[in-house]
Amino acid sequence: MSLLHAIKFNDAGLVPAIAQDAESGRVLMMAWMNEEAFRQTIATGFAHYYSRSRQQQWKKGESSGHVQQVTEIYLDCDGDTVLMKIKQTGPACHTNRESCFYKQQQDDAWVTIEEPMT
Amino acid sequence: MSLLHAIKFNDAGLVPAIAQDAESGRVLMMAWMNEEAFRQTIATGFAHYYSRSRQQQWKKGESSGHVQQVTEIYLDCDGDTVLMKIKQTGPACHTNRESCFYKQQQDDAWVTIEEPMT
Repeated sequence: MSLLHAIKFNDAGLVPAIAQDAESGRVLMMAWMNEEAFRQTIATGFAHYYSRSRQQQWKKGESSGHVQQVTEIYLDCDGDTVLMKIKQTGPACHTNRESCFYKQQQDDAWVTIEEPMT
Repeated sequence: MSLLHAIKFNDAGLVPAIAQDAESGRVLMMAWMNEEAFRQTIATGFAHYYSRSRQQQWKKGESSGHVQQVTEIYLDCDGDTVLMKIKQTGPACHTNRESCFYKQQQDDAWVTIEEPMT
């Protein structure tokens, strides 16, 4: 797959991938992909990542059902970051919030700005 | 600075930081911060990063003038990714494009979708 040639995976064989809601533009999460996760994302049209803690590739939403249908994929100038526009089913965050970025800096504290979805 | 306690810097002392245009919602770039870059970002209100190639902290736009005024900062659920909403002066990308994510996947190729700004 020649798409892979342009991607600069790091020493661990991973590249950061940002998932952005295609409709709202909200940044939902950032996770890591290895070559296989990237391949599977392209092949299936659903976001796959690589879990550094579990040391395995996973399809986002495989157990929760909170899948990410990929509508567009971008690579940055240096080839070392991937950006995906996605249609998110359910919450993106494992805390059941819409986005993983729910802690906002206010003065010298991180303040939770969003409740879990019910 | 207690904000720093919640941030999980990696083994190299770095955390990825995503810069998103506060107005358009476009993701402009992803770069890395060390503790000092994060401190300087908070202290000055302008994005600072850490250059892994030059091994030093830098203020975005210091030489080009293409500074990033930070309007909001978020931390993700795992504490290992920072998201900034910013007001970008000029192009964010060193190629003079608005965003670093100007290569779009189309079938098995990355296609440049944006010309440099003049």
